[in-house]
Amino acid sequence: MAGKYDLDLEPCAANYQPLTPLTFLLRSADVFPDRVAVIHGNRRFTWREHAERCRRLAGALMAAGVEPGDTVAVLAPNTPAMLEAHFGVPMAGAVLNNINIRLDAAGVAFILEHGDARVFLVDRQFAPVAREALSRLGRKPLVIDIDDPEAGDGGSAGTIEYEAFIAAGDPGAPIRWPKSEWDAIALNYTSGTTGNPKGAVYHHRGAYLNSLSQILSFGMTDHPVYLWTLPLFHCNGWCFSWAVAALGGTHVCLRRVAADLVYDAIDRLGVSHFCAAPTVLGILIEGRPKGWTAQRPVRLMTAGAAPPAAILRQIRAIGFEPLHVYGMTEMHGVTTLCQWQDEWDLLPEEDKIGRMLRQGVRCIVQEEQIVADPATFAEVAHDGKTMGEVLMRGNMAMKGYLKNKKATEDAFAGGWYHSGDLAVVHPDGYVEIKDRSKDIIISGGENISSIEVENVLCDHPAVKEAAVVAISDERWGEVPCAIVELKPGAAGIDADAIVAFCRERLAHFKCPRHVIFEPLARTATGKVQKFRLRQIALEHLARR
Amino acid sequence: MAGKYDLDLEPCAANYQPLTPLTFLLRSADVFPDRVAVIHGNRRFTWREHAERCRRLAGALMAAGVEPGDTVAVLAPNTPAMLEAHFGVPMAGAVLNNINIRLDAAGVAFILEHGDARVFLVDRQFAPVAREALSRLGRKPLVIDIDDPEAGDGGSAGTIEYEAFIAAGDPGAPIRWPKSEWDAIALNYTSGTTGNPKGAVYHHRGAYLNSLSQILSFGMTDHPVYLWTLPLFHCNGWCFSWAVAALGGTHVCLRRVAADLVYDAIDRLGVSHFCAAPTVLGILIEGRPKGWTAQRPVRLMTAGAAPPAAILRQIRAIGFEPLHVYGMTEMHGVTTLCQWQDEWDLLPEEDKIGRMLRQGVRCIVQEEQIVADPATFAEVAHDGKTMGEVLMRGNMAMKGYLKNKKATEDAFAGGWYHSGDLAVVHPDGYVEIKDRSKDIIISGGENISSIEVENVLCDHPAVKEAAVVAISDERWGEVPCAIVELKPGAAGIDADAIVAFCRERLAHFKCPRHVIFEPLARTATGKVQKFRLRQIALEHLARR
Repeated sequence: MAGKYDLDLEPCAANYQPLTPLTFLLRSADVFPDRVAVIHGNRRFTWREHAERCRRLAGALMAAGVEPGDTVAVLAPNTPAMLEAHFGVPMAGAVLNNINIRLDAAGVAFILEHGDARVFLVDRQFAPVAREALSRLGRKPLVIDIDDPEAGDGGSAGTIEYEAFIAAGDPGAPIRWPKSEWDAIALNYTSGTTGNPKGAVYHHRGAYLNSLSQILSFGMTDHPVYLWTLPLFHCNGWCFSWAVAALGGTHVCLRRVAADLVYDAIDRLGVSHFCAAPTVLGILIEGRPKGWTAQRPVRLMTAGAAPPAAILRQIRAIGFEPLHVYGMTEMHGVTTLCQWQDEWDLLPEEDKIGRMLRQGVRCIVQEEQIVADPATFAEVAHDGKTMGEVLMRGNMAMKGYLKNKKATEDAFAGGWYHSGDLAVVHPDGYVEIKDRSKDIIISGGENISSIEVENVLCDHPAVKEAAVVAISDERWGEVPCAIVELKPGAAGIDADAIVAFCRERLAHFKCPRHVIFEPLARTATGKVQKFRLRQIALEHLARR
Repeated sequence: MAGKYDLDLEPCAANYQPLTPLTFLLRSADVFPDRVAVIHGNRRFTWREHAERCRRLAGALMAAGVEPGDTVAVLAPNTPAMLEAHFGVPMAGAVLNNINIRLDAAGVAFILEHGDARVFLVDRQFAPVAREALSRLGRKPLVIDIDDPEAGDGGSAGTIEYEAFIAAGDPGAPIRWPKSEWDAIALNYTSGTTGNPKGAVYHHRGAYLNSLSQILSFGMTDHPVYLWTLPLFHCNGWCFSWAVAALGGTHVCLRRVAADLVYDAIDRLGVSHFCAAPTVLGILIEGRPKGWTAQRPVRLMTAGAAPPAAILRQIRAIGFEPLHVYGMTEMHGVTTLCQWQDEWDLLPEEDKIGRMLRQGVRCIVQEEQIVADPATFAEVAHDGKTMGEVLMRGNMAMKGYLKNKKATEDAFAGGWYHSGDLAVVHPDGYVEIKDRSKDIIISGGENISSIEVENVLCDHPAVKEAAVVAISDERWGEVPCAIVELKPGAAGIDADAIVAFCRERLAHFKCPRHVIFEPLARTATGKVQKFRLRQIALEHLARR
């Protein structure tokens, strides 16, 4: 029998609706209709206009036959169309699948095939790779060209142009609201430990909560001016695609990151917030106009790899306010932040930097985070020394991986999300990542699966076996380093030949920067000792 | 068959947990263990200490036999024990029932009986009314005295003192997490249109979301110093009981509102935020120390009644930053805010005030709000003239009224929450309340049911019939005004006699401030015309 607090107190339309970030857009269109929502070159859209364009996109997609649960893929940099897709696609009941623009045709084709894309929006700059990817597909999606006046033109991949497509869309077509907040809203592929990427499925609930979480973590209040240095195809821009709409802020689009463009946007448009991998911060430090310092508060979140101390030191010296955060695609983006403590105000600068290098503590909306034995879940001592795996649970994690039950079960084994990152916990409870149990290399903010690269290397006729490890790099954070054992009798094969072989078969950013010829160190049971290989690689490089 | 986005993608412990504000406390205890959480007179508790006290309370309640779904009532002003109850009670799986300290014994007894309180925490100042209320009950709850050193002592109502009770509680006792985010967390009685109060049941989901909503509406970032001018028994302090914990802020307790105490707290403790009914703002304006102006930003939310222009003007002149908000007990507090628009910056002060007098627009977390015909749900024109009822739906509304299916159904008729407030919508979409379709009088921030007062008046042997309407009052916002028709032949009955009769039977704040002897204006169908009665009352009072 229901207790008195449940009797005749069921949810109804008045007191329960699925959480979804789509409501953010409608509210800002109602409350801030004439505020600028999107700036891109000389184009500006108010919240009323932006919302209308999103709804036209939804209307056009539905008219084109898109059904609830269909996938709509996008291959585009940070443009208005990309932002519009974040609302227009789920308003049509479909799932937004942003594809990394740095992938090669094989990578794009795999995702289009695996995600079963029904519609594919392609920025013309990326038409060549899109055309090649499409040529490999069986069933063809409807392909829409995004003809951005700010872009170079790589020709056409599709059958209709985006502006014409949405112009024909009905902005009054009823929105397909999620039936459940557990419904999928986005699909984001991540490089895994296997060569094939895995598709993390985001839900409306997670996207909504993480949007609010990001606002809280970043200390955002009304109307941030948010610069899109972070690719929107990374975790939907760490959910700022939706969070900026919640606050009626302004999106400042950016097709590519170059220091002059960033400083210009800050000076001219009053940018207040942006996100960037440490590599991008390096670009900003290098490219700073002589004597430039921030004249207004400009806050930035950095993640993707631990920022080097030098980067934090220099970016602060310029007057930026960096916040080191941590997360992953599987968690809708950011789960952890290096929360500033009042008493740090009194520390010398170098000690402040030392504190900021740590990944930190769980965000307000992240229910639980521990560093523990991933099998027993016994937490490590908070001694800054004992290593364990970072595990999380709560409402930030993805639904799971698309069509990959095994990977989902592994990721959520024992009711915790297994980050694959090895960390210590300091006595103040702050987490610091020390190593990576998964073999992912993060280079310039992009994930590279070492196994994918190893597979290519092993395809080389002269290669007996190969392993790829991450080597830290001042500019890129990490770069792939290949350790290659040649077949007996193989001759005339040098590092350049190996790299050239890879470049024909992999996106360039995935190719090894260093190649070392050496037998692979293995454990007694035959497992490659990546830790030992990293040491060997470092010794080799030091000798050069 | 499940689509691909649902197949093998069910929620699990890693990616789904019931939303609950209880997590806020645990996080702040972890992340800000040594920051001050609570200040009360000379007592200070850090977040570690505060969390430990909350958990001790939970442990003690469980040890005392409190079961999930039991009610724990509290009769106390804004003290540490009251704040601790907001976490300790739900951590024991129980439902917190704060009782208005201005109620008389009959009102308190009704709530204890109706809510079936298993435990009753009583601040000693209110021991006399508690004793009298308890004497009327059949089954007796466990009664705990809160012996606050800052308080006058009204003796004892209970069998154990609060500090002794929690000292014996196990801070390590496992928390009883909600099994569903729809589980009840609080029970808040509101004066309805019928004489008996109705118990609005709050859920963990709503309390969590409204806490985040309040943070966003108030523009709060890390560590607000929040002064408890608003009673915690009003909608759990408009959810700031929980929201302040999310941000690791500081609660500054206040047993009673007096201007000198408020200004002292601002000056000495750095108060950054508080909430207050317009009446309380009037007290602050009157009691301002000569020449005092705010030296740091001090933001305040005001609601409970529309603030008079003079109040807003004067409170701004002192340097406070008021935000007019709107909501009701049934919605966990605040749903609507008078969102500032950039262009208002340029308006003359009087026009700014004019804008701020409106209740405004829905909060970010409030999904939908319309002004419409409550039967057809047809929205009114946004012309600033056409009246309709304010209707809301989304995730802010209560579960419903406890043990009152009919009232719940009426409140949620047609899938919308019916506020009972009549409003216009201005061309910019801002709502302005014009009248009240429910007959509630809001006096000094307290709700008074006109029907409850009418029922008492009609008990008077000389009264034929009576109606009570709200009259605006500079100090109290509104006060009750009785229009009384005496029985033929009744003699020697004057206003004082009527008021004295009411004072014996009602809490003093509910008694009519004005009594007018006059026949009741009625419609053709016999319905009392409250609107006409208000006019008559105003004319009478003007003639005095």
